[in-house]
Amino acid sequence: MAERDFIARLLAPLATTPAARGLSDDAAVWMPPIGRQLVFTHDVLAAGIHYLPDDPPSDVAWKLLAVNLSDLAAMAATPAGVLLGLGLSAAEDEAWRAAFVAGLGRALAHFGVALWGGDTVSGLAQAVLGLTAVGWVEPGKALGRAGAQPGDALYVSGSIGGAGLGLAVARGARPFDKALLGRFRRPMPRLALGAALGGVASAGMDVSDGLLIDAERLAAASGVGLAIALDAVPLAVPTSDLAEVLAQVTAGDDYELLFTAAPDVDVAGLNAATKTPVTRIGTVVAGSGLALRYEGQLVPVPTRLGWEHG
Amino acid sequence: MAERDFIARLLAPLATTPAARGLSDDAAVWMPPIGRQLVFTHDVLAAGIHYLPDDPPSDVAWKLLAVNLSDLAAMAATPAGVLLGLGLSAAEDEAWRAAFVAGLGRALAHFGVALWGGDTVSGLAQAVLGLTAVGWVEPGKALGRAGAQPGDALYVSGSIGGAGLGLAVARGARPFDKALLGRFRRPMPRLALGAALGGVASAGMDVSDGLLIDAERLAAASGVGLAIALDAVPLAVPTSDLAEVLAQVTAGDDYELLFTAAPDVDVAGLNAATKTPVTRIGTVVAGSGLALRYEGQLVPVPTRLGWEHG
Repeated sequence: MAERDFIARLLAPLATTPAARGLSDDAAVWMPPIGRQLVFTHDVLAAGIHYLPDDPPSDVAWKLLAVNLSDLAAMAATPAGVLLGLGLSAAEDEAWRAAFVAGLGRALAHFGVALWGGDTVSGLAQAVLGLTAVGWVEPGKALGRAGAQPGDALYVSGSIGGAGLGLAVARGARPFDKALLGRFRRPMPRLALGAALGGVASAGMDVSDGLLIDAERLAAASGVGLAIALDAVPLAVPTSDLAEVLAQVTAGDDYELLFTAAPDVDVAGLNAATKTPVTRIGTVVAGSGLALRYEGQLVPVPTRLGWEHG
Repeated sequence: MAERDFIARLLAPLATTPAARGLSDDAAVWMPPIGRQLVFTHDVLAAGIHYLPDDPPSDVAWKLLAVNLSDLAAMAATPAGVLLGLGLSAAEDEAWRAAFVAGLGRALAHFGVALWGGDTVSGLAQAVLGLTAVGWVEPGKALGRAGAQPGDALYVSGSIGGAGLGLAVARGARPFDKALLGRFRRPMPRLALGAALGGVASAGMDVSDGLLIDAERLAAASGVGLAIALDAVPLAVPTSDLAEVLAQVTAGDDYELLFTAAPDVDVAGLNAATKTPVTRIGTVVAGSGLALRYEGQLVPVPTRLGWEHG
């Protein structure tokens, strides 16, 4: 299918918002909400790097949208619209493209996000899928990685390590487990919690490369240390084997939110208002880097903290 | 160089605007100008498709920015910021990356555009470079491809066909010609003219795939026909050979603006105010498609009107 047909026949029916102008102009035009700051992110997924070539195309579309919305959630932003940059190879045949677009349409509808525009290129050696997500936040309420203060508590949403185990399932290295596979293929951005954290959390980010590596980044950006109780981390697969704990807290793709806030923040209220589990896993301390404890004992910080991009 | 080093060492120094947050947060945060619509575009350049692998990396960076700014110009928008989506292969070694970023910095400074954020992926089979450009326009003044009315005149900026001839130079199929090569490698988005056309032109777009194919798209979007005098088209290399005329009006990558406006629009004033040559090349007529004339005689419309994306 030629690119123009792909856009006109498959993508244009998804671009129902007036801002998209039916994907027939050179750009999208959108009136932003009055008195709001805008939040922009762009993440790229490459076949064979960020997803497996035989992952279902509808799940690839979900993941492409979800990882970008997770960045907005990490900034306490509410999503509005997206632009696509699709680089496709011969492996993404007509059936793949149709399934991808159908899945994208369902994902956009699920999150209430508009498709505004983008670009498609065919004939590449490998699929490379980019997406720009645009959202908004009340002025001054955007979260950042800097801002954690000694004495703050450290929290994480949901559970950790499931996506890494799901990748092992997808690779055939673990027995089939639908829930874990879903964590890898269809991450769920924590948009409600993120929006609720604006003005509440002192620092925040999403856990995309592994809990420990992302915690270390938050600590570095804030100029503080983080004391983490590994046995308090809500693991996707609970275990009393420290090696298995460490495997889960250094696995990527969880797309949970990691944030710091006063120790008396109303966790139960956040939980109830956003239907999102929130668990305290540690404390912000003076200093730098990570201090890990397991059953009260200090644990050496692993050499590999998560996924370091090549 | 690892991606994180690439971002921290090369890209972060370009991201001096507060909105970018030093590229150290999950997203950029920007307060849009009050009372303006925002304009969004995302275009992708792939190595070996949109540029030649041995094009200078600083020119590739220029082109990546310029083609996106050209889409903003086509909508009468003024650019504000950009996000990058860089997919790189082993061919883009450290020297290439440094030269690309240096060229990007010069291009951003030239156009007064901020780098807000983005993502970088290494280890691809082929370089795929995406860029999202964000601009603003006074409400209701954005141009579109629809809106041309029979009786309007058809105009084009600058000259046509130079980039296609420059591609031939780059491929060694034409003798070296610095000016033509520059048209291919370093297109110049018509931002001043585009901004001046808001509220003045009835329809507009940029010429990216060839004058004739883009004119046909404007005609289709507006539901009109376009009568074009081929001998009025300002060619990059003037010629009296009709075949050579047709080659230039069906070549891509010019990034000039094609627009319709009342026949009494003040072309001399536009030209003076924006320092951009503007030439009338035809008339909007009732009907559909293109009617081409050369020296007063009808010329059959070529089968191939420009670059049809595969």
